[in-house]
Amino acid sequence: MPAHAFRGILVPALTPFRSDLTPDADAFVTHCRWLLERGADGLAVFGTTSEANSIGLEERMELLEHLIGSGISPDVLMPGTGTSALTDTVRLTAHAVERGCAGVLMLPPFYYKAVDDDGLFASYSEVIQRVGSSSLRVYLYHIPPVSQVPLSLELIGRLLSAYEGAVVGLKDSSGEWSNTEAVLREYPALATFCGSEVFLLDTLRRGGAGSITATANVNVAAIRKLYERWQENDAEALQEEINAVRRAFEVYAPIPGLKAVVAGFYDSPDWRRVRPPLRALEPAASEALTGSLAGLGFQM
Amino acid sequence: MPAHAFRGILVPALTPFRSDLTPDADAFVTHCRWLLERGADGLAVFGTTSEANSIGLEERMELLEHLIGSGISPDVLMPGTGTSALTDTVRLTAHAVERGCAGVLMLPPFYYKAVDDDGLFASYSEVIQRVGSSSLRVYLYHIPPVSQVPLSLELIGRLLSAYEGAVVGLKDSSGEWSNTEAVLREYPALATFCGSEVFLLDTLRRGGAGSITATANVNVAAIRKLYERWQENDAEALQEEINAVRRAFEVYAPIPGLKAVVAGFYDSPDWRRVRPPLRALEPAASEALTGSLAGLGFQM
Repeated sequence: MPAHAFRGILVPALTPFRSDLTPDADAFVTHCRWLLERGADGLAVFGTTSEANSIGLEERMELLEHLIGSGISPDVLMPGTGTSALTDTVRLTAHAVERGCAGVLMLPPFYYKAVDDDGLFASYSEVIQRVGSSSLRVYLYHIPPVSQVPLSLELIGRLLSAYEGAVVGLKDSSGEWSNTEAVLREYPALATFCGSEVFLLDTLRRGGAGSITATANVNVAAIRKLYERWQENDAEALQEEINAVRRAFEVYAPIPGLKAVVAGFYDSPDWRRVRPPLRALEPAASEALTGSLAGLGFQM
Repeated sequence: MPAHAFRGILVPALTPFRSDLTPDADAFVTHCRWLLERGADGLAVFGTTSEANSIGLEERMELLEHLIGSGISPDVLMPGTGTSALTDTVRLTAHAVERGCAGVLMLPPFYYKAVDDDGLFASYSEVIQRVGSSSLRVYLYHIPPVSQVPLSLELIGRLLSAYEGAVVGLKDSSGEWSNTEAVLREYPALATFCGSEVFLLDTLRRGGAGSITATANVNVAAIRKLYERWQENDAEALQEEINAVRRAFEVYAPIPGLKAVVAGFYDSPDWRRVRPPLRALEPAASEALTGSLAGLGFQM
């Protein structure tokens, strides 16, 4: 794993919206600070969970600048920068690098489907070459259930060989442990993060870097605890505990569910808001989720 | 069908790229002019076939302005403006309306999957309300094989009821005639276009508006002829002829295939170029395609 790669638990921080659906930059900073105070090793802002793909290019860049301007160090930031359009991806990536972000989490272009490895290799190559900075650290983002554009093992290997030092990590949100296991086995030089904490112990046992996971928005301390204690006797029990919380959210639409719980925590109903095409959790579902979590003794 | 809606054959014009992958605005204008001279009723620029989703926001707006500045009337333009992000879609749509475009072809937000009708209704609603122009004419773009976000019959009906006069048409690129037939039956007030000319005769016989089809980039005159003569005795024969050309392209990656043929027509190898993640057709495949078309007596 590269010496300067991220390790640990990173949070794809949720993005709060005001009633006019503009990002609430101050509430966002507050949440990011809280996550870091609770032990997050980094913030994968503008991830899938952040609804980043529903947020415009200019808005994303402004929000990143606000975050850094508010004192969040770019050393802990791994913004998502992959869009469907080559030049927009270059723009967001170059911006993140210029602002000193320690890494970027990069989706493949996700509009055209059934594209082949050569096309995806060319996409990532163009972005890396156009950004043209020795400070660029790319974390590949494999999330086929949403992007519908998988990154094959072969493609990952080609990118790693061609751009050693620039391509340094991967987030595997395939939900398939066999795939994460294969990446860990084939590419030990890559900082590999599981996209769900249910695979955290397995990931760490096979030399992985940690997890970048949605649920860390509400449960980062417990997940971080397993990251610290994965070689201790209570590791399996800690894994079971965080799995139970994860499962409670998986019953509902995860992003609206997380926002409902965060809204309760900050006592701010505005936090429940999502951008279309997502929809806020219905009050009855929020109550049921809160009930499930209370049953687990969960506290944010 | 609304009085001022588009009718006939519209072309999702291919976008030529220079060696640095920037759009070749002059070659684009030349191609658009040629399409209009050959009988196109309109240009659905920045469609899927145009690789629009690989082109950045600023580039799309600049290219549209160049097109209009070069004398292509906005009365014949139906640019694609749907992106994955609400505010970017608003920006492109407002820009197209400000520039006088007679319509826009609007994808649903296509990153998040398994979203429901309420979420998609909210998306289109937000865009229409934010653009807030009585000049806005939206053509809904149903292309589930690529977007992976279908527009249900119920959603179409809700949008049509809520935004009468603004939501005026639909392009059905599902590839499923049963769906196009259902849209035509349920919503005769909508200007419905089939996304493939193989359904043109069936579409027109059931009161549809025409076709917006990739293959029109190379075969618009023949497709337009069927549009004119659909009630004549030779209509079935004309349908068979254009189907044969369509089938020849479907053997290969359609966008690179179309570009290869257009490159031959303009004697400009640059036209073969595509943006990643697509890939240009291999020379052998180009030759095979050219051979198939020659066998059909096809001339662009």
